[in-house]
Amino acid sequence: MKSSGMRQMKLGAFFLIPGHHIAAWRHPEAEASSVMDLGLYRRLAQTAERGRFDMIFLADSYSVSNRFPAAIEQIVSARPEPLTLLSALAAVTEHIGLAATASTTYNEPFHVARKFASLDHLSGGRAAWNVVTSKYDEEALNFGGQSHLQHELRYERAGEFVKVVTGLWDSWEDDAFLYDKENARYADRAKAHPPNHQGAWFSVKGPLNVSRPVQGHPVIVQAGSSEPGRELAARTAEVIFTAWPALPEAQRFYAEVKGRLAKYGRSPDSLLIMPGVFPVIGRTREEAQEKRALLESLVPQEAGVTLLSALLGVDLTGCDVDGPLPELPRAEEMNGGRSRTQLVRELAGEGMTIRRLYQRIAGGRGHLEVTGTPAEIADELESWFTGGAADGFNIMPPYFPGGLDDFVELVVPELQRRGLFRTEYEGKTLRDRLGLSRPVHPAVRRSNTENKAAGR
Amino acid sequence: MKSSGMRQMKLGAFFLIPGHHIAAWRHPEAEASSVMDLGLYRRLAQTAERGRFDMIFLADSYSVSNRFPAAIEQIVSARPEPLTLLSALAAVTEHIGLAATASTTYNEPFHVARKFASLDHLSGGRAAWNVVTSKYDEEALNFGGQSHLQHELRYERAGEFVKVVTGLWDSWEDDAFLYDKENARYADRAKAHPPNHQGAWFSVKGPLNVSRPVQGHPVIVQAGSSEPGRELAARTAEVIFTAWPALPEAQRFYAEVKGRLAKYGRSPDSLLIMPGVFPVIGRTREEAQEKRALLESLVPQEAGVTLLSALLGVDLTGCDVDGPLPELPRAEEMNGGRSRTQLVRELAGEGMTIRRLYQRIAGGRGHLEVTGTPAEIADELESWFTGGAADGFNIMPPYFPGGLDDFVELVVPELQRRGLFRTEYEGKTLRDRLGLSRPVHPAVRRSNTENKAAGR
Repeated sequence: MKSSGMRQMKLGAFFLIPGHHIAAWRHPEAEASSVMDLGLYRRLAQTAERGRFDMIFLADSYSVSNRFPAAIEQIVSARPEPLTLLSALAAVTEHIGLAATASTTYNEPFHVARKFASLDHLSGGRAAWNVVTSKYDEEALNFGGQSHLQHELRYERAGEFVKVVTGLWDSWEDDAFLYDKENARYADRAKAHPPNHQGAWFSVKGPLNVSRPVQGHPVIVQAGSSEPGRELAARTAEVIFTAWPALPEAQRFYAEVKGRLAKYGRSPDSLLIMPGVFPVIGRTREEAQEKRALLESLVPQEAGVTLLSALLGVDLTGCDVDGPLPELPRAEEMNGGRSRTQLVRELAGEGMTIRRLYQRIAGGRGHLEVTGTPAEIADELESWFTGGAADGFNIMPPYFPGGLDDFVELVVPELQRRGLFRTEYEGKTLRDRLGLSRPVHPAVRRSNTENKAAGR
Repeated sequence: MKSSGMRQMKLGAFFLIPGHHIAAWRHPEAEASSVMDLGLYRRLAQTAERGRFDMIFLADSYSVSNRFPAAIEQIVSARPEPLTLLSALAAVTEHIGLAATASTTYNEPFHVARKFASLDHLSGGRAAWNVVTSKYDEEALNFGGQSHLQHELRYERAGEFVKVVTGLWDSWEDDAFLYDKENARYADRAKAHPPNHQGAWFSVKGPLNVSRPVQGHPVIVQAGSSEPGRELAARTAEVIFTAWPALPEAQRFYAEVKGRLAKYGRSPDSLLIMPGVFPVIGRTREEAQEKRALLESLVPQEAGVTLLSALLGVDLTGCDVDGPLPELPRAEEMNGGRSRTQLVRELAGEGMTIRRLYQRIAGGRGHLEVTGTPAEIADELESWFTGGAADGFNIMPPYFPGGLDDFVELVVPELQRRGLFRTEYEGKTLRDRLGLSRPVHPAVRRSNTENKAAGR
């Protein structure tokens, strides 16, 4: 189901509370102490829904950061578990999609399939699963391991995990449940299809004890941009959430990933690419720049240096923060994300000190950053959207609630005036809104194919 | 925090939708086809809250029953996952407690600790965890196993699991989070206490990435009544949900379990015993009996025979359903629940046929059953409550919504008139309502003890 008329962008609201900026919690207007309160999330979700956002997006990890000694003091490490939170928000919203992250490395497919299927039912077809493989050794230590599973094995496991989960979602055909009181037939057992999966990583018999989700399958989101990450996405994802600081790389990524779809028999429309955007919005350019300067001034030094070290894959503690970056190893030898490293190199080339560098990247952390008026922000989004770099964006407000309010009150109307964004929700499910088709049950597909072959 | 005046009973609402009776879904008034709809659960939760229930209770298992060939056709096997559902209900209720089942055999303590802590925060202190060890081989098959973990090992694992979870809940002292924007101190790292657990079953470093729950610890519920089950309950549980068909056994169980508390330094009040009750309510006794007869007439034969077989631990398929029960092995040699088996034996002694027997037990399935007027039902609950058999009850409506409506509209007012049940919610959290104290953080307890010893 696609919206009629011109192509419109999709918008996700990245709910990293109290804000995407690493020092967001210090912002005078950030509701830092409400990070566990449903009341705050309810208001934010309803704001995002008023702004006609496609979905709320919740990132996740399974540990408290100890990547620097003062991490516990300087950054926000305790938040509600995403599925628990989104389920509560399902009850107080009507239209907006609900995308939660769950790792394939530290979960069981049966539980993941069941929780997302349940959320999809309870929300009337608004669930999405962001498939991640986790990245920190600290997470392994909370699940009996010593260190994190190796990258390739993680993706191997992830591929099988997604297969098991979708198989479990297809445990029942859509019309398997009859509720036939008269004839004592609650379900038609011919329409139960336990996956009976036996693989290298999992053995799961099924069927799932939840009926087929409203959307057939909750929408599958993916964020990895490594080679195995892209391949998994091309095979299974319907939305990619990605990070690019500038248009040319984003265009290359967009073309490259869309180009992989054909070999899996998929059309370019079946996978939406949504880069993250860190917007600092002012009614005037000066106001926006002041807002940005305030945020930058709030970054604690230790947190800033560590963030920069992590992005570069180089330990900068001990360096003079008011001096330049030391000489870096060549890009190929580095361990950090390639595109983010490139961004920092360019900035360092402009002569920025370490302090200026970490202030500069503490908000977007490698994502597109835009500081300006609503029109300037809309311009930038429009150029990515029409320029072959994005099907939509994941909006990362610097702080909550103000940063989200600004986007909904100032930027959304501008996008709507340009015809780039919906004014009313179309359809009923998240798939309807994203223009993604509902997966036909494999048994029905087989039977359709056989009928066709037999000329029926 | 205890309610003033006379001791009052606690009530749980056992939300097995569309009803506790095995044929509930066939009842003309049961909303069988709404079993995945949040709208139904929202109405039911609000009804229970209007009735001043202490909590909603959700049982769980991780498989679809295949214990007889027609199980998929004749019984309800697909329902929402409990934590997902309760979290949604947290957003549309204000007072009622939210108790979900999670198994220690097929989960990771980190996830369980995190989800219940999140639910406790989002609900403002209303979460409870029903600790089970699971019981079906079918569940093992959905988690890579071949058969179910042996009973003793299950309880060994459960004991360690509960210890890890409570340790994770104590990852932070109550006042560890400072939100001190001025001095850039989000948290006080001296008040973080990662459990660093290394045990036979689990190794979990922590800390949890959720702040200490509103209740300190969500309330711990337990249901096992085997020897290791009773011991685990005496050590860790705060509510026991149990099944006894008649007063004398319930009294024996009550005295026996309460008697175990002293050796763990616990007072009898610190553990509430709440037997399940299956009430069939009529405005007159005749109306109640007609309701019961209707329910009995709806039990499909195969489901009935299998249920009876399971309760007895003896395969009855192939027997003439209109004949008597075959001779049973001696109680000591049987595998089924001892008290339930005893109930069936007594009924069989009265000359009931197999059909009459399964009809007779298809509702309560070993729990106390009461069929009668509101006054008769209140009489029975009162006699258990004042007779040393119960601190409260888990009410198992035969079908929904009618069975719950009847209880709230007819029985609750009768209990309130007798002063046996609250008319308004007291306190703020589930612990307040249950009269359970809030666990003091171990670090605070230690420091209090040291101050006392030092005469400070």
